[in-house]
Amino acid sequence: MKQVRIGIIGFGTVGTGTIKILLNQRELIKKRTGIDLILKKVADKDIEKPREITLPKEILTTDAMELIKNPEIDIVVELIGGIHPAKDFIIEAFRNGKHVVTANKALLAEEGNDIFLEARQKGVKLGFEASVGGGIPIIKVMREGLVANKMLAIYGIINGTTNYIFTKMTDEKIDFQDALRQAQDLGYAEADPTLDIEGIDSAHKLTILASLAYGIPLSFNKVYCEGITKITAQDIAFAGEFGYKIKLLAITKILDGEIELRVHPTMIPDNYLISKVDSVFNAIYVEGDSVGPTLYYGRGAGSMPTGSAVVADIVDIAKGSETLPVDFSEKYNIKPVQEIESRYYFRFTALDSPGVLSKISGVFGQHNISIASVIQKGRSKAGAVPLVILTHKAREKDVLDAVDKIDKLPVVAGKSVFIRVEGEEY
Amino acid sequence: MKQVRIGIIGFGTVGTGTIKILLNQRELIKKRTGIDLILKKVADKDIEKPREITLPKEILTTDAMELIKNPEIDIVVELIGGIHPAKDFIIEAFRNGKHVVTANKALLAEEGNDIFLEARQKGVKLGFEASVGGGIPIIKVMREGLVANKMLAIYGIINGTTNYIFTKMTDEKIDFQDALRQAQDLGYAEADPTLDIEGIDSAHKLTILASLAYGIPLSFNKVYCEGITKITAQDIAFAGEFGYKIKLLAITKILDGEIELRVHPTMIPDNYLISKVDSVFNAIYVEGDSVGPTLYYGRGAGSMPTGSAVVADIVDIAKGSETLPVDFSEKYNIKPVQEIESRYYFRFTALDSPGVLSKISGVFGQHNISIASVIQKGRSKAGAVPLVILTHKAREKDVLDAVDKIDKLPVVAGKSVFIRVEGEEY
Repeated sequence: MKQVRIGIIGFGTVGTGTIKILLNQRELIKKRTGIDLILKKVADKDIEKPREITLPKEILTTDAMELIKNPEIDIVVELIGGIHPAKDFIIEAFRNGKHVVTANKALLAEEGNDIFLEARQKGVKLGFEASVGGGIPIIKVMREGLVANKMLAIYGIINGTTNYIFTKMTDEKIDFQDALRQAQDLGYAEADPTLDIEGIDSAHKLTILASLAYGIPLSFNKVYCEGITKITAQDIAFAGEFGYKIKLLAITKILDGEIELRVHPTMIPDNYLISKVDSVFNAIYVEGDSVGPTLYYGRGAGSMPTGSAVVADIVDIAKGSETLPVDFSEKYNIKPVQEIESRYYFRFTALDSPGVLSKISGVFGQHNISIASVIQKGRSKAGAVPLVILTHKAREKDVLDAVDKIDKLPVVAGKSVFIRVEGEEY
Repeated sequence: MKQVRIGIIGFGTVGTGTIKILLNQRELIKKRTGIDLILKKVADKDIEKPREITLPKEILTTDAMELIKNPEIDIVVELIGGIHPAKDFIIEAFRNGKHVVTANKALLAEEGNDIFLEARQKGVKLGFEASVGGGIPIIKVMREGLVANKMLAIYGIINGTTNYIFTKMTDEKIDFQDALRQAQDLGYAEADPTLDIEGIDSAHKLTILASLAYGIPLSFNKVYCEGITKITAQDIAFAGEFGYKIKLLAITKILDGEIELRVHPTMIPDNYLISKVDSVFNAIYVEGDSVGPTLYYGRGAGSMPTGSAVVADIVDIAKGSETLPVDFSEKYNIKPVQEIESRYYFRFTALDSPGVLSKISGVFGQHNISIASVIQKGRSKAGAVPLVILTHKAREKDVLDAVDKIDKLPVVAGKSVFIRVEGEEY
């Protein structure tokens, strides 16, 4: 029986899941694939602290480089996260002729072009299924399952933390800060939640998906990225009145040869399947020109789901599956966000004067923005009321200009909020 | 550049989609995989009738065997459906050293054990992604993406016709026959709809999924299969009152080392993602022990979606991906349906006598069936009213015995209807 020897760098959450699966499913995987996966070494800075699973002393090491250079290891699994030293470990593994499996979306999004180039030059393989969508095999689906499709659009809920926060805000009508605190208490959000709530984690993953979809170089610095902190329980309630849910979507689509790359809170019709994806779950909607609309749903994070994806990559590489070296060299224009067209939701804080709607709609008219619906109700303690407007399709640049003017109107208090709206108009 | 030569048997709906994709996406696939897929021959009984796509005369043939024996063909694609001569063509292709791709679920479910054995013995590959879920890459997901998981349960909406009928019945409150007629008018149901509405098509596909999940031989004759014809608009309305949708589900799960294999109309909580899958769309919920719950959604039929799956198989085989020969030799007990446990929905036609509920619940009590809720309302023209009961978990055998007795009660008119209920009790 073919034996393949694994070295893992990083004995944290995902490392633990991966190790558990390698040990517990060894017989099952043998039976299914005819390959015996042998856990040879595990490297971590701290090999003393107690963990869910106890490994024999001789497997553990604090020296990742020793593991990487070990001639008895065939596949190196990088699970420490971050840019350095993860990148150095991976490059060094390639140079030692090892295949690599990683879950490191930040690294691939920001430094992936170097990494893929190095893998290509050394003729080794790089598995990164676990970098997007946790246990959902979305990378395999896009590279292999939908290989016969031109990709038209991807809409992803690919950050569980923010989806949990929006679900809580929706179900319990609480505000962002309260929902964030609950997420932190449950371990769904980190003490410093910036990467998640500012959309950066979603942008990392979107970068990877877009390169797979369109064959373009990894273009993290071209992703428009907007977090969820400005969304209030009130916005969620108004969205509901219009028949929409608010989700943090990672969106890439191709229109007239130009690619959009953006992460932002998005209103989507509440009868769309993806708007029913709640709590920490992820879902990726992929539309191909032959297959039409498809959707993939599951746990986007966690020890065992992510471990499931890491081990699937290990098996693929161990089988010698011809995952051809990734070459992201297509040249497409990435559309600046100012150039996109979208429908918009606006929430203005209007001083309750009779002329406010006419003034705002006047500015909209000057900027070619046409109004689809208006909600105005209640009177706040401060004497100001929320005025909510849904528009037809407009150009983002016009919207930004209009908002700029409206925010300076004396009948409007504070800064206005807008949310992009996706889905067919109805 | 590596060239791989394709011969297709069957120039019908799926054949046309496959041919279109092979021709239109040839450059894209070259770029993505480094392989040039060449359409060499297309065989069909009728090569004269006009089709959406016109092929050069020299590609067309009426002689499938000539195609199969052609030394210039590497992969034979069988798209004629049915058992014979499809099986003979595939076996003959294997004997000529060709790899085969097929979309033929009936053939695989009923004769697959022979076919996989022959492929194994000849050392050739068999792709069958298109046999389940149309364009959804569910076969690849189960064999590769979730390879590190013990499968715990699968719930599939894997027949678009019946899902369309239930969606129509729900949305328009019409009865089965009317919805069927609409489906037939739109081409979603065939003139003879038996295979779809009796659940046989779903049972074929479930057979394939269960073998992938548990490694058991293809066991079509052990699938419990019940169609949708007895479900009325009234049942759907009552289900709605209890917070459920009715779907034709293909279910396989493993409990205490025994496997359940069943297709029947099923009530599922209307807040479950799969209950939102409407119209002709398919979705397969797969629960693995590591990955947890996952779901895959898309078009389950049609020329282009199914063609997308066929071409993905062709690419995999052309790449030489190590899809190891399938060996379904695990020994598990398949649980007879009488042994399963489920919750149940009952609709009795009760003569409006005060004692009816006590009589029925008496019979239930004798058979260890405990009642969760009851709905009784209205008075029909015939002097009989529907009495609807939802139970806690009970054994199917007890349910069958109880129904038998209840149907003989003088206070009950006609045959009673029951529907199995899945999902957590709440």
